[in-house]
Amino acid sequence: MTYSVAVSGASGYAGGEILRLLADHPDIEIRTVTAHSHAGDPLIAHQPHLRSLRHLQLQPTTPEVLAGHDVVFLALPHGQSGQYTDALGDAALVIDAGADPRLTARADWAAFYGGDFHEPWAYGVPELPVDGGKQRERLRGATRIAAPGCNASTVSLSLAPGVAAGVIDAGDIVSVLAVGPSGAGKSLKPPLLGSEILGTANPYAVGGSHRHIPEIQQALRAAGAADPRISFTPVIVPMARGILATSTAPIAAGATDAQIRDAWEAAYGDETFVQLLPEGQMPRTADVLGANTALMGLAIDRAAGRVVVVTAVDNLTKGTAGAAIQSMNLALGLPEGTALSVNGVAP
Amino acid sequence: MTYSVAVSGASGYAGGEILRLLADHPDIEIRTVTAHSHAGDPLIAHQPHLRSLRHLQLQPTTPEVLAGHDVVFLALPHGQSGQYTDALGDAALVIDAGADPRLTARADWAAFYGGDFHEPWAYGVPELPVDGGKQRERLRGATRIAAPGCNASTVSLSLAPGVAAGVIDAGDIVSVLAVGPSGAGKSLKPPLLGSEILGTANPYAVGGSHRHIPEIQQALRAAGAADPRISFTPVIVPMARGILATSTAPIAAGATDAQIRDAWEAAYGDETFVQLLPEGQMPRTADVLGANTALMGLAIDRAAGRVVVVTAVDNLTKGTAGAAIQSMNLALGLPEGTALSVNGVAP
Amino acid sequence: MTYSVAVSGASGYAGGEILRLLADHPDIEIRTVTAHSHAGDPLIAHQPHLRSLRHLQLQPTTPEVLAGHDVVFLALPHGQSGQYTDALGDAALVIDAGADPRLTARADWAAFYGGDFHEPWAYGVPELPVDGGKQRERLRGATRIAAPGCNASTVSLSLAPGVAAGVIDAGDIVSVLAVGPSGAGKSLKPPLLGSEILGTANPYAVGGSHRHIPEIQQALRAAGAADPRISFTPVIVPMARGILATSTAPIAAGATDAQIRDAWEAAYGDETFVQLLPEGQMPRTADVLGANTALMGLAIDRAAGRVVVVTAVDNLTKGTAGAAIQSMNLALGLPEGTALSVNGVAP
Amino acid sequence: MTYSVAVSGASGYAGGEILRLLADHPDIEIRTVTAHSHAGDPLIAHQPHLRSLRHLQLQPTTPEVLAGHDVVFLALPHGQSGQYTDALGDAALVIDAGADPRLTARADWAAFYGGDFHEPWAYGVPELPVDGGKQRERLRGATRIAAPGCNASTVSLSLAPGVAAGVIDAGDIVSVLAVGPSGAGKSLKPPLLGSEILGTANPYAVGGSHRHIPEIQQALRAAGAADPRISFTPVIVPMARGILATSTAPIAAGATDAQIRDAWEAAYGDETFVQLLPEGQMPRTADVLGANTALMGLAIDRAAGRVVVVTAVDNLTKGTAGAAIQSMNLALGLPEGTALSVNGVAP
Repeated sequence: MTYSVAVSGASGYAGGEILRLLADHPDIEIRTVTAHSHAGDPLIAHQPHLRSLRHLQLQPTTPEVLAGHDVVFLALPHGQSGQYTDALGDAALVIDAGADPRLTARADWAAFYGGDFHEPWAYGVPELPVDGGKQRERLRGATRIAAPGCNASTVSLSLAPGVAAGVIDAGDIVSVLAVGPSGAGKSLKPPLLGSEILGTANPYAVGGSHRHIPEIQQALRAAGAADPRISFTPVIVPMARGILATSTAPIAAGATDAQIRDAWEAAYGDETFVQLLPEGQMPRTADVLGANTALMGLAIDRAAGRVVVVTAVDNLTKGTAGAAIQSMNLALGLPEGTALSVNGVAP
Repeated sequence: MTYSVAVSGASGYAGGEILRLLADHPDIEIRTVTAHSHAGDPLIAHQPHLRSLRHLQLQPTTPEVLAGHDVVFLALPHGQSGQYTDALGDAALVIDAGADPRLTARADWAAFYGGDFHEPWAYGVPELPVDGGKQRERLRGATRIAAPGCNASTVSLSLAPGVAAGVIDAGDIVSVLAVGPSGAGKSLKPPLLGSEILGTANPYAVGGSHRHIPEIQQALRAAGAADPRISFTPVIVPMARGILATSTAPIAAGATDAQIRDAWEAAYGDETFVQLLPEGQMPRTADVLGANTALMGLAIDRAAGRVVVVTAVDNLTKGTAGAAIQSMNLALGLPEGTALSVNGVAP
Repeated sequence: MTYSVAVSGASGYAGGEILRLLADHPDIEIRTVTAHSHAGDPLIAHQPHLRSLRHLQLQPTTPEVLAGHDVVFLALPHGQSGQYTDALGDAALVIDAGADPRLTARADWAAFYGGDFHEPWAYGVPELPVDGGKQRERLRGATRIAAPGCNASTVSLSLAPGVAAGVIDAGDIVSVLAVGPSGAGKSLKPPLLGSEILGTANPYAVGGSHRHIPEIQQALRAAGAADPRISFTPVIVPMARGILATSTAPIAAGATDAQIRDAWEAAYGDETFVQLLPEGQMPRTADVLGANTALMGLAIDRAAGRVVVVTAVDNLTKGTAGAAIQSMNLALGLPEGTALSVNGVAP
Repeated sequence: MTYSVAVSGASGYAGGEILRLLADHPDIEIRTVTAHSHAGDPLIAHQPHLRSLRHLQLQPTTPEVLAGHDVVFLALPHGQSGQYTDALGDAALVIDAGADPRLTARADWAAFYGGDFHEPWAYGVPELPVDGGKQRERLRGATRIAAPGCNASTVSLSLAPGVAAGVIDAGDIVSVLAVGPSGAGKSLKPPLLGSEILGTANPYAVGGSHRHIPEIQQALRAAGAADPRISFTPVIVPMARGILATSTAPIAAGATDAQIRDAWEAAYGDETFVQLLPEGQMPRTADVLGANTALMGLAIDRAAGRVVVVTAVDNLTKGTAGAAIQSMNLALGLPEGTALSVNGVAP
């Protein structure tokens, strides 16, 4: 069968990437695209790269417009999705690319976002080790899915295998991420201007304020960590897309090099879209551009007493839209990798 | 008086930046420029931005050519400077931009570089806290100066104040650096091609192998650390110049926020070229492009139990050539900031 | 049926892009990949983005290794393909991404390349207006195909409709192209280093020496121009991929605005992979990244007396590998767009 | 004596560059900086690279605040300067970086800008050939100066020598410019976002609508052209600063190669800040980053019948702020090159 789909927030970067991937999905018909202030415009006016969708026109984002589809993607600023999902009913699969249904702890929501708390939905990172299994199991047949935060899922995937195997100590994690500005969306803010981005590296949310911190902590708790603590610093660098996350954690007492490497190999050896590179190799973001792949390198630094995991993802693909569609495939019972590429566009 | 200067390695990036700064130095005459394989070429063929020096021709790098100058800059691959410095005699001020005379421990040299060990020279980072004072004192009147490794001096400046004041624990430092490819020089290697650098973030020397690690450790020991340990990861990002170093260390037991901030303010409050930003502000590399400034932001993350210091430098200026010339000024008794700009070229 | 394929020059950029596209082609089995100096290496060591092809190993480029495939792609420096194609026989479809079989005039080859002249093959730009029809007709069932020069096909597609319709004068064309460095391949030359590419615009082959000039001239002659003359200047800019060609030609005497616009609409109105934008719109290279699309904007400047055509292509896709595979599809009788995307990866 | 200076529009890119250069000017005291919506902020909040000016606070842009200085720079959107200059009186030297006082023809202003026409001031491009002399003569002692449009002065300098010498035909000029986004200022528009600028080339104002066209035409008329016509296309590329202008014009009948080259050498052979490269060499924008230099390469393409001039400038320095300060130096009787560097910051 062919599933009808509506995508809200279709004029933004996350919405655009969802549409780019869906455009090649054999089981999907993109029926409706919506946007807030741009309703009435042709989609192509805001997504000029989506040549195959130039027949589509942006409609207003309302419950009525979104109703009646088999699948609805919400790519909206946080705090907005609730008004739509309640109206959609249980027949539709709803996938939220925003933060609202990600956090399990009310206190985390209050501390990092604020506003009404939203009950958590199935978390859209299929490969994530969780409670002795994989998050994948919780996504099969789900009708409500929370797509992950791009930085959060990158760091969680990086460290969860070591946490689950008990070979690293999650109590003193340090993650520093080189990230492209598309993660911040199309917001018209001076620091996001091209002249401010080109030729410079620019940190933000330094010192513990980034909203993806509690999302990482809950993922690591689900993988078995008692009290995960993380120093988290994102740095915007001049590439449109991509996250290169360098994450380190203390080696657990007594863990051997073989045990450490085995933890990651056991977790991801059979995965298509999360790949551990051979010893001595490290990933680059270019190698996953446009791909649904998280590419991971692992080093054990005995002198520093730390495991170092470097993971490359495309923030818009594996970090957001690819994760959403991979989760959709699982929820609908389709082959998990449909319409998702493992190969990047490089150079 | 006017000092005559020779610059070897003048066709490379470090040599080019030394020349760019010297070209505006009122007390210097650039008399001789040398290069290895490019001897005979006009300098401008390799440094087309140095329009005011288009009268200079590259000569071969030999002791004879370098002899007879008041100041000699060596910007050569490590392992090469010894053959020249011995021949230069004590009358000349010799400043080595290479690694040879940086390390104090023979074992570090053997482990990270190999080949003949070189006795250490005065370390060219004037503002660095050392043994209760500043490195500046050791540079006044010196005749042999080791310019620092760009990544090393950036991280050492970032953390030495906290080490000296006892407010951070140097035993578990994590530093991740976004760096531009010019730090790797003009080497013709595939990963340094433009097509491989554009649009991507690419880590290297992950897991404890980077040669700047022992240089940082000895700087922190000189600042008072007993046994500094550092997890160090550089990531090449698509900007020609610049280092943005994110360095974190555990907060020492009992250290208050005020004590922590005071440590850095006390160290750098009177410095011209190392500036601590007000609370809540973080630096960008663009703001120090072409400048001799290290710009620093400090955050205290109590949830993670770590101090986070983010420092921006231009790897070729404050990281290499600016440090060399600032040290030269001190050695010659000139005003320390002569020919050095505190302002960057932005956007 | 499934066609077996060999790709030579598989460690380079053109070879890599051919493989990226073929990896998703349902009728193709990539059986053999070859390289010159890298034979013996895993393909993935040189193409780390081609995750689905990590089972392939590079073999030496010899006639014996290339023999026995249904389709052979040659992505070699010019002057090298002859030695292989003679040995391959007529059973195999051979597609040369190099320049050897492109030029029809022996004098052009001698003037711009030199060395042995190679008889021209069917030119792999299906949409190109030629002799009152399209180049497509000559590609159906072909067994020897010359993939185009990326800059040449971009400019030829830009202007051929106006030439064919007689609304522009091909005797005084000016084309200036912003191009990414991947068009120059993985050559280890100083001007192609990342530090030299970032933050700068750099022209080359200025003043009439670029090798794509005769290729454009012969395409325009085939479209009906008597004596096409072109001032052609490529400028390398800091984007890994992409060509943005601005081409202008004098408006032919008496041509009306409607006639001019009609010429392009008639030529490309039914094409999938060459799209003329609506009046007032201009293309960007990002919108065709990784796509097989040439996106074109047309302006009529009566004050200057010139038509201006701006065309964006991905030099590695539509400019090289996509053109090769589109041509292969035609030659094999497959749907022309198989394995080719019309949508770019943006932002 | 020391001249007191006020800079309006000090929070923007042009204002920032004026301040960066003035900060090192030995005869200038920067007394006042003003901005419209940011009045009250410290200057450094908007110009974080101007470390030496962190004592300055932005004041409102009013005639009262600007009054009483020896020199006033206006870096405001066009249409705004009139209200201030009238109030400033003749004692002050006023330099307008906006377009208002550039055009000599009322009809041009009406066609390309609109609104009240402003009488033209002395045009701030000292090296420009004009009426058999140089524009420099008109700037000595001037009290009202119009800084040039960055694209306009680049193209005018490129072609005026050939026009003045009669060796090119100004009736069919084609100029295509690769330009950095800082030329568009800090405007918060979607096409100027970093995600939209990175990795792409993006043309604008195609087909004869760019406002710098009449400015070029009047400069070429002043150099001797009867009826200059120009096809002008700027293309935004991913570099923060820089213009690389490729300009071509038909070779005048009978002009020899020697005559052509002599025209440019005669015009610029004695100039410091406009430099013609030796035959066969072409400029890059990186080589003039932060410099007041226009670097020019000349090729004669007999096959195309055109002269090609490629000129690199930093749009903010030689294109705007450097031109303004060079003109100020002339007006005040100071050495023309004071506070201006001929060397770029590269790589």
